[in-house]
Amino acid sequence: MPDGFHFSTEIRVRLPETDVMGIVFHGYFFTYMEVGRMDYLRNLGLTEDVKPIKGFDNVVVHVGCDFRSPARFDDPLVVYVRIAEVKRTSFRFEFQIVHKRENRLVAVGESVHCAIDKATWKPITVPETFRETIARYE
Amino acid sequence: MPDGFHFSTEIRVRLPETDVMGIVFHGYFFTYMEVGRMDYLRNLGLTEDVKPIKGFDNVVVHVGCDFRSPARFDDPLVVYVRIAEVKRTSFRFEFQIVHKRENRLVAVGESVHCAIDKATWKPITVPETFRETIARYE
Amino acid sequence: MPDGFHFSTEIRVRLPETDVMGIVFHGYFFTYMEVGRMDYLRNLGLTEDVKPIKGFDNVVVHVGCDFRSPARFDDPLVVYVRIAEVKRTSFRFEFQIVHKRENRLVAVGESVHCAIDKATWKPITVPETFRETIARYE
Amino acid sequence: MPDGFHFSTEIRVRLPETDVMGIVFHGYFFTYMEVGRMDYLRNLGLTEDVKPIKGFDNVVVHVGCDFRSPARFDDPLVVYVRIAEVKRTSFRFEFQIVHKRENRLVAVGESVHCAIDKATWKPITVPETFRETIARYE
Repeated sequence: MPDGFHFSTEIRVRLPETDVMGIVFHGYFFTYMEVGRMDYLRNLGLTEDVKPIKGFDNVVVHVGCDFRSPARFDDPLVVYVRIAEVKRTSFRFEFQIVHKRENRLVAVGESVHCAIDKATWKPITVPETFRETIARYE
Repeated sequence: MPDGFHFSTEIRVRLPETDVMGIVFHGYFFTYMEVGRMDYLRNLGLTEDVKPIKGFDNVVVHVGCDFRSPARFDDPLVVYVRIAEVKRTSFRFEFQIVHKRENRLVAVGESVHCAIDKATWKPITVPETFRETIARYE
Repeated sequence: MPDGFHFSTEIRVRLPETDVMGIVFHGYFFTYMEVGRMDYLRNLGLTEDVKPIKGFDNVVVHVGCDFRSPARFDDPLVVYVRIAEVKRTSFRFEFQIVHKRENRLVAVGESVHCAIDKATWKPITVPETFRETIARYE
Repeated sequence: MPDGFHFSTEIRVRLPETDVMGIVFHGYFFTYMEVGRMDYLRNLGLTEDVKPIKGFDNVVVHVGCDFRSPARFDDPLVVYVRIAEVKRTSFRFEFQIVHKRENRLVAVGESVHCAIDKATWKPITVPETFRETIARYE
C-alpha cells in the first residue's frame, strides 16, 4: 500500500469507460475516485441513505489528476483513498490508482470538498464528528 | 426526413461515447435519444426549469433500440424524434438516428414513458394539455 | 435466483449514474448489463485481453429493457445473466436486475449480438467452440 | 469573451450528466472540455478522421478544474478554449466554462497533453506545423 494510505477499493475497467484510443477516457478517473471516496466514507459509517456524507452537504470545489500510465478495458485497478487534510470549511481527498496485476501507478489525483448549507449554497464549518472520525482513522 | 417525422436535432459523437471497439458504445444511444426528446419537448414549450416535462412527472418504463450501422468518433448524427402514441397513462417516443454526412441509418429506437405522481410513484392520467399539444403537432 | 439463470454479478449504483430525478438514468442499465455480460464470459473463459469475446468479433444489433422499479444512489444490485439463444450468426443475452437488499425486480433486459468479420463488418457463423461452451453451461 | 480567449463552443447540460445532488457531476466537465478541445482543433483544420489531432498522437498527462458555481439540467454553457503554452513535447489547454443565460463563471480548467509515438508510448517533439498553426492563431 502506498505510504500514508490505509484504505483501498477495487474496480475493473468497463467497456463504456474506454474510448477509440484504446484506453480509459481521462474523465472517467473521476468516477473511479468517486467510487473510492464513497467506499472510504461508508467504511467509516459516514454515509447516510442517498447522501454521500451523513449530517451535512458538500460540493466539489477542485479536482486534479496526473496520468502516469494507461488503463485499458477489463484492467483490474486498485484505488487508494485518504483524507489528507481537514480545514475549517473544506477537506481534501488524495488518491492513487494502481494497476493491480502489473503493480504500476496509473494515476494520482485529489479532490477538495467544501461543506455547505444547501439552502444558501454557502460554506459552513465542517462538523466536529466528521473531523474527529477522520482524525482517529488517518 | 423519414416518413412520419417532423422534428430533428443534431449531435456530434464525443470521444468518451466511443469505446475500444472504435465505435459508439450502444448504451450512449439512449443519451442521444434523451437529447432529442428534450429538444422536441422544448420546441413545443413543454419543458419547465429542470423538469423534463412541464406539469407532471414521468418515468421511462421501456426502451429498445436496433443498431443498423456503426457511429464513430466525431460523426455528425441527426436524431429524428416523434411521439407516436399517447395512451391513458403513457406515451411512446420513436427515434431514427441517421449519419448526416453519409445519409445512412444508424439506429432505430423507442422509449415508453409513464406519467406518475412522484409522491406515490403511481401512474396518473396524462394531462389533457400535453395530449392536445402533441395531437396538434403530430 | 430467477428461473433459468445460473450466473449473477453484483454492482453498486455510482453517483454519476444517477440523475437530477434522483434515480439511475435508464441508459446506464446497459452499462450494468455490459458488466454482467463480461463477467459471465470471463467466468467461462471466453474473454481474451481487451477483446470481449475470444476468437471472434461481435456487434450489438438490438437491446431492450423494461424498467419495473427505480434504482437509487448507492443501491446494491444483482445482475442475473444468461445466454438464452444461440442462432447461426447471432446470440441473445437475457438479464434480470434485482435490488439486493429489498429483493425487488428493478429491470429486465436483453441484448442480441451478431458475430462479424471485423474487416468487412459482415455476419459470420458463430464459432463452434463458443456454441459448445454455452450449451454445456446453460 | 474572457481575456486571452478567441474561441468558444456551446453545449447544453444533458440529463445523464446531472446527478442526484441536482447538479452536473464534476467528472463530466472533462467531457465538456473535450468537446471544446475538439471543436477548437477542428476549427483550425487540425483534426483528421477519428484522430483527435492530425499527424501525431497525444495523451492527456494532467487535468485540473476549479468549480466556481453549479450547472444544472438543461443549462446552456459556453466553453472558452485556448492553447496557453506549447513546450517541446507537450502543450497546455485552458478552459473557462460560463453559464450563458446568467453570465456567471461555472468552472476553470486545464489539460496538459504530451505528444507520443503510439508504438512505444514515448514522448516525441510536438510537430512544427501544429506549433506554427497555434502560434499564428493564439
